[in-house]
Amino acid sequence: MTQDSGTRASWGELLRVPAGDGPVDLAAIATDATPGVEGKQEGAALTEATTPSLDELQEKLFASSLSGGDRSVLLVLQGMDTAGKGGVVKRVAASMDPQGLSHHAFKKPTAEELAHPFLWRVEKVLPAAGRIGIFDRSHYEDVLVPAVHGTLGAEQIAARHDEINAFEKRLTENGTTVVKVLLHLGRDEQRSRLLRRLDRPDKHWKFSPADVDDRALWPLFQAAYGDTLRATSTPWAPWHVVPADRKWYSALAVQQLLDEALRGLDLEWPTAAFDVEEQRARLLAT
Amino acid sequence: MTQDSGTRASWGELLRVPAGDGPVDLAAIATDATPGVEGKQEGAALTEATTPSLDELQEKLFASSLSGGDRSVLLVLQGMDTAGKGGVVKRVAASMDPQGLSHHAFKKPTAEELAHPFLWRVEKVLPAAGRIGIFDRSHYEDVLVPAVHGTLGAEQIAARHDEINAFEKRLTENGTTVVKVLLHLGRDEQRSRLLRRLDRPDKHWKFSPADVDDRALWPLFQAAYGDTLRATSTPWAPWHVVPADRKWYSALAVQQLLDEALRGLDLEWPTAAFDVEEQRARLLAT
Repeated sequence: MTQDSGTRASWGELLRVPAGDGPVDLAAIATDATPGVEGKQEGAALTEATTPSLDELQEKLFASSLSGGDRSVLLVLQGMDTAGKGGVVKRVAASMDPQGLSHHAFKKPTAEELAHPFLWRVEKVLPAAGRIGIFDRSHYEDVLVPAVHGTLGAEQIAARHDEINAFEKRLTENGTTVVKVLLHLGRDEQRSRLLRRLDRPDKHWKFSPADVDDRALWPLFQAAYGDTLRATSTPWAPWHVVPADRKWYSALAVQQLLDEALRGLDLEWPTAAFDVEEQRARLLAT
Repeated sequence: MTQDSGTRASWGELLRVPAGDGPVDLAAIATDATPGVEGKQEGAALTEATTPSLDELQEKLFASSLSGGDRSVLLVLQGMDTAGKGGVVKRVAASMDPQGLSHHAFKKPTAEELAHPFLWRVEKVLPAAGRIGIFDRSHYEDVLVPAVHGTLGAEQIAARHDEINAFEKRLTENGTTVVKVLLHLGRDEQRSRLLRRLDRPDKHWKFSPADVDDRALWPLFQAAYGDTLRATSTPWAPWHVVPADRKWYSALAVQQLLDEALRGLDLEWPTAAFDVEEQRARLLAT
C-alpha cells in the first residue's frame, strides 16, 4: 500500500470484519500475514511517517475537549495470552501525551464488580472527552470466558452480545469512536512466546500456569472469538482482525487504525475564546 | 557530574530543599542554571544512558506489585503556568509502559470536591501499588492559591501544611515514594512562552487570560512557594527545586530524580510462584 495512491484501501477496510456477514472462521485468516505492507522495512517507514501526525491529532482531540468538544476514541484490544496487547500499547502510546491517554487493563472481576451487571465496571473507566482510552482486555472477556467455560448458555451469551451492541451504539452516539482489534496470534507462535517467558527469569512474572490451561482450550477460544466477532461487528463499532505473529506489524496496524479514526473526526484547533491582541498588550504590560 | 565518579552528589542532594531549613528565597536560585551537567550535549547523553535502565526499573516496580509488592512512586509537579509540567511528563513518560503509569491533572476543584476536605480528591487518584503516579499540579494548589488570594489566613494555611505533612508521611509508610518537584521558571522566560502561545493559533488552546492575571501576582506566588517549600519539605517527602528555563534540563533532572527514587527501592524481579520445568513440560505437551 503506497502512501500516495489515491485508490488504496484504508486500513479499516483491509482489516475490518464486515457487519452481518455470518460466522467468522479465524482459522482461514493467516496470523503471519502483513496486509497493507510488503515487509518490515516498509512498515518501519510508515510507522515513522505517521507518528508526528498522530501525535498532532491526539493533541487536537485533547485541545478540542477543553472548548466543549465531546469526541473521544476507545481502543479495545483483545487477544490470547502473549498476543502482544501490552507491547502494542507501549509502541503506539510512546509518543503520545499521557494527559490525553487513559489506559485500563481488565483483570478477573472483583467481588464488587461481580455484584453488578457486567458493563458496570466498563462504564466507570470509559475515556473522558478529548482522551484516547485504551482497554487491554475489555467487556468482551465477559462473553468469551463464559462461552469457553460453558458458564453461560447460548441464549445468555446472545443477550450479552445485544447489550454490548446497544452499549457501544450509545457510546458512538455520544462522541466516542470505538476501534476494536483482535490481535490474531498463531498457536505455534504462542508456544514460542510462552517458552521464552519460561526461559527468562526476568519474564517469569508475565507467565501464569493458567496461560497453559487456556492454551489447552485454544479451539474453544477461537470458536468463541469467531462467534463474538460475528455477533458484535456492527456498522458503528466494527471489529478488526490484526495478524499478530509479527510484533512490528500488529503495532503498525493498530497505529494506522487509530490514525484513521482520528482523521475521521475532522478535528480543528479550537479558536481563541479571547482577543489575542488584547491579551498580548496585557502580557507586555507585565 | 560524571557517571563514573564515586563521590558525586546525587541529583536528590543537588536539588533538594533541606527539611527544617527556614524560609526558602526562590529569587536566590537561578532559573537558567543546569546543576549537575555542563550543557545540553552532556544532558542528552545522560538522558539517553538513563532511559533503558529507568524503563527496566518501572517494569520491575510493576512486576513486583503482581506478587504482593506494595511499592509505588508519586511524582508531584508544581510550577507557574508554562513552567513545562506537561512537557516534562511527555518526555519522561515517553518510553514507559502506560499500564504502569497513572497520570492526573488537577483542575479547579469541582463543587463535589469543594464539599469535601481538600485531600479527599487527592486520595482518590493516588497510584496503586506498582505504579508511577504523576500529579500535574496537586494538593499544593490548595495552599498556594488560598495564600496568594488571601482566602485563608496564615493559621489555616499552616494547619493545611500540617495535614499535608501527615498525609505524605502516611503515604511513605505505606510504600509510596513521594518525589516533589517545583519547576522553577524565570519571569522573563514565562513572558516569552506566553507570547509564543499567543503567536501560534495551534497553541491558543493552551492560553488563558487567567495566566496573565496570575502573572501579575508573580511576587505573591513566589512568596507562597517559598513558604510552602519551607513548611512541607520533610525528611520523608522533600521538595526539589528544578531550574526550568531550559526545557531539556528540567526533563533531565526529573528523569534523574525518578531514576534515583526507583533505584532506592532495591527492586528485584519476582521469583516464579510455579515450577518452571513442570510448566515447560505442560506447555510442550500442548
